[in-house]
Amino acid sequence: MEKLLSGLRKFQSTYVPSHKALLAELAKGQHPRVLFISCSDSRVDPSIITQADIGDLFVIRNAGNIIPPYEATNGGEGATIEYAIAALNIKQVIVCGHTSCGAMKGLLQLGELEEKMPLVYSWLRHTEATRRLVDEHYAQLDKTGRLDVLVQENVLTQIENLRTYPVIHSRLHRGDLSIHAWVYNIQSGAVLAYDSEYHAFVPPHSKIYPEPEYKEALEMLDQTTSAAEEDDHIPSSHLPGFTRLSRNQAKRIYQGSAAMTHQ
Amino acid sequence: MEKLLSGLRKFQSTYVPSHKALLAELAKGQHPRVLFISCSDSRVDPSIITQADIGDLFVIRNAGNIIPPYEATNGGEGATIEYAIAALNIKQVIVCGHTSCGAMKGLLQLGELEEKMPLVYSWLRHTEATRRLVDEHYAQLDKTGRLDVLVQENVLTQIENLRTYPVIHSRLHRGDLSIHAWVYNIQSGAVLAYDSEYHAFVPPHSKIYPEPEYKEALEMLDQTTSAAEEDDHIPSSHLPGFTRLSRNQAKRIYQGSAAMTHQ
Amino acid sequence: MEKLLSGLRKFQSTYVPSHKALLAELAKGQHPRVLFISCSDSRVDPSIITQADIGDLFVIRNAGNIIPPYEATNGGEGATIEYAIAALNIKQVIVCGHTSCGAMKGLLQLGELEEKMPLVYSWLRHTEATRRLVDEHYAQLDKTGRLDVLVQENVLTQIENLRTYPVIHSRLHRGDLSIHAWVYNIQSGAVLAYDSEYHAFVPPHSKIYPEPEYKEALEMLDQTTSAAEEDDHIPSSHLPGFTRLSRNQAKRIYQGSAAMTHQ
Amino acid sequence: MEKLLSGLRKFQSTYVPSHKALLAELAKGQHPRVLFISCSDSRVDPSIITQADIGDLFVIRNAGNIIPPYEATNGGEGATIEYAIAALNIKQVIVCGHTSCGAMKGLLQLGELEEKMPLVYSWLRHTEATRRLVDEHYAQLDKTGRLDVLVQENVLTQIENLRTYPVIHSRLHRGDLSIHAWVYNIQSGAVLAYDSEYHAFVPPHSKIYPEPEYKEALEMLDQTTSAAEEDDHIPSSHLPGFTRLSRNQAKRIYQGSAAMTHQ
Repeated sequence: MEKLLSGLRKFQSTYVPSHKALLAELAKGQHPRVLFISCSDSRVDPSIITQADIGDLFVIRNAGNIIPPYEATNGGEGATIEYAIAALNIKQVIVCGHTSCGAMKGLLQLGELEEKMPLVYSWLRHTEATRRLVDEHYAQLDKTGRLDVLVQENVLTQIENLRTYPVIHSRLHRGDLSIHAWVYNIQSGAVLAYDSEYHAFVPPHSKIYPEPEYKEALEMLDQTTSAAEEDDHIPSSHLPGFTRLSRNQAKRIYQGSAAMTHQ
Repeated sequence: MEKLLSGLRKFQSTYVPSHKALLAELAKGQHPRVLFISCSDSRVDPSIITQADIGDLFVIRNAGNIIPPYEATNGGEGATIEYAIAALNIKQVIVCGHTSCGAMKGLLQLGELEEKMPLVYSWLRHTEATRRLVDEHYAQLDKTGRLDVLVQENVLTQIENLRTYPVIHSRLHRGDLSIHAWVYNIQSGAVLAYDSEYHAFVPPHSKIYPEPEYKEALEMLDQTTSAAEEDDHIPSSHLPGFTRLSRNQAKRIYQGSAAMTHQ
Repeated sequence: MEKLLSGLRKFQSTYVPSHKALLAELAKGQHPRVLFISCSDSRVDPSIITQADIGDLFVIRNAGNIIPPYEATNGGEGATIEYAIAALNIKQVIVCGHTSCGAMKGLLQLGELEEKMPLVYSWLRHTEATRRLVDEHYAQLDKTGRLDVLVQENVLTQIENLRTYPVIHSRLHRGDLSIHAWVYNIQSGAVLAYDSEYHAFVPPHSKIYPEPEYKEALEMLDQTTSAAEEDDHIPSSHLPGFTRLSRNQAKRIYQGSAAMTHQ
Repeated sequence: MEKLLSGLRKFQSTYVPSHKALLAELAKGQHPRVLFISCSDSRVDPSIITQADIGDLFVIRNAGNIIPPYEATNGGEGATIEYAIAALNIKQVIVCGHTSCGAMKGLLQLGELEEKMPLVYSWLRHTEATRRLVDEHYAQLDKTGRLDVLVQENVLTQIENLRTYPVIHSRLHRGDLSIHAWVYNIQSGAVLAYDSEYHAFVPPHSKIYPEPEYKEALEMLDQTTSAAEEDDHIPSSHLPGFTRLSRNQAKRIYQGSAAMTHQ
């Protein structure tokens, strides 16, 4: 607690005076542009990762950055999403997963969880879609590989679940909302975002900042794609523009994330 | 989104290199000491307020910093609490509310909410204990006064709810857990913590750093107490030592929080 | 049934005529002063134990004298509590557990219950906080010792759960309600009440009738305390004045309850 | 509380010594023969009304003596019933309603309840079958008359609900269980039991003790039956032997209960 209290004092003696105008303005009302959904994990901090100011991000955090489908639960997720969209008119939603996620590890050992952590066990049912998909399609990967794919597939599952919320469904219809799936690497600090054109997780600013590093990554993607020996089955989604990773893509991402780390 | 992406780049080019060792260490496992429960509000950022590092805080954020009683919901709150205590062995829990909370404003206009934001309406039922208490005991305050008391009483309600969780109930039994109720002032940046001896919200470090400002605040408390015209009935609890704010205390805090701002 | 019908006749021929005035008065309206919550067990009868008259006790009885947290269930417990406090203005609540409670025995053999008595199994989840606390802190006791502690800790858990009800939360705030935890010994007929000063179950009238027997019991408590070989760690609560039984206290009570029988 | 504590002392100094053998025997295990379901109302005490001893009755008490249908709730009713039948092998169940029942009055003013006592409001939904039946078939009665019929129909509704419980359904099948519907008059102390042959509430021992008073009541029933001007429609139930009251029966009971009071 002493560390926290020191931090409070430092915040009040340095940050507050230097942000007086911002705080005064925000006291009249908040206007965040982004709903940021991330894990409760202490290594994943939305405002540190995005270097955001107070007032920028409206945040939901829970174990595993899970958003259950509409009506599946009566916890805080649904209400907070509804408030973000309907009351605050937010137009960008980011679901951010992360490597080494404890909740995803839990999906690999559900049997043990039921007795020792029954609430976590029940909570993980809301991402059973993730567990089943990986179980059925990625059985050939070792434990580390499966964990990485669970982290990625999990954020994609949450996007599907988000789409079941009335406020989201309606705003998507009129093109007034965009949803992004991010994966944060807790050691390298890199963030990759799902790109539905490339069916892969790539540096998120690649569309906006066509840069040398990204060009490099794209070339690497093309190379590994043509070099693929196995049948490169890309499952098409029932939702146009929204596809899933193929086995090769998963391998590529797993191996490629080191190369694609944006430094 | 551009601002966020710029922030990502800044994070990766400045924060990551200067925290390489920390990130490497944390990649092996997280050991946060605090479970921080706060509102999704963009103006309340746990790591900015406490100037915490990555790895310090395990965070739950939802609209209204509400923790429903054990078994009342199947959302993320219970599972995340269970993981924090049982898996991460966290021993300090902070529930942090804040001034101008939209969820608390919602408690003052429930009728309107039911139709426009039904999920928020249902979610607020979990803090009906707060709404009822303020409705029955603080009817004489104006809307602004009632909002301030709602913010304070709400964090106290969440402490009661937290105690119904098996992991929390058990750890409290062996004295291995402490729970703190904070209120953050979004304009002044001040944080006050509930002190069960004084039955009031006071600067949190007062016990650890007996300082001039705190002495000042205590003197102010004593003065306003003796100056009280109305019957200052401090409700005694059936549990010695655990009491609630009286009407006068609420007024004092409302008026006094500006004076008690720690700068 | 014959016995019951005989009883009915005896009631109507002896009790009714001798209580005519009382029955007439009560027919206009009931004004019980106590909400008594006890087990359905046939050996625990609230009006016999307290020698109460018709009109004295408003009673909830279920298996295990369990009150689930607010919103955890939609059974009769919550509604009956709300009616007792809001409609009848009752100011005293007694939760009374008892030795040899079948529901508490069930907590020690949950595995068997799930198949044979699934409703009982699910119902006991509402006192999982009790089961977990005893499992984590009293593992060294034998089955009989654990059962006694389960009975005692169970009533304390119900007090925590009661506090989450809006009507209770609000009345406690203004000091208009007191909650008592009793344990009834089905063989000796003794009743002990939890005393938060002594952190132990003691004869309930000890505060009102400082008597020889109580003095005796206190002396015995003191003696056994000083005779304690093991480290007598009394867990402090984050809330001053509110603590739980330590291992030694549990042993003392278990052994001492025979001696403390009030005859 | 003083009255209760005096009662405790009297219980321990008079009842306990005179029932030593019974208490010792019961400490080995309980063998109640009856599951008694009654209202929490302070004027209705099962052991006083039936002059039962400790050990005779296994009791469930809640507001309105309501047993929701199987699976409708996760409160204590279902678990306690299951324990009574499956663990204790009880073969007689009595559901006992009473005149001037507050819960039944609540059925006549649901609109007001929703805001002031939301838990009671929700709880009463479990006897909506009662409210609807009376609303559709007894509209011509005044408020007092409707209340009396609500009390009677309510216990009959609970019998239907009881039949949906697996343990009950199975025991009824083999004729190993009998269920009785009683109505207790809180002023006269009389108890009437539903008789499916006469489709009326009559003194419960009438089959066992054919007595002068009962003969008298039967003659009165016959007289009022032949005097009926309206169409005496007796709705037959889909369950053999189990029928409902016709309008005339309701009137008869309402007027006749005074005459049938067993003194």
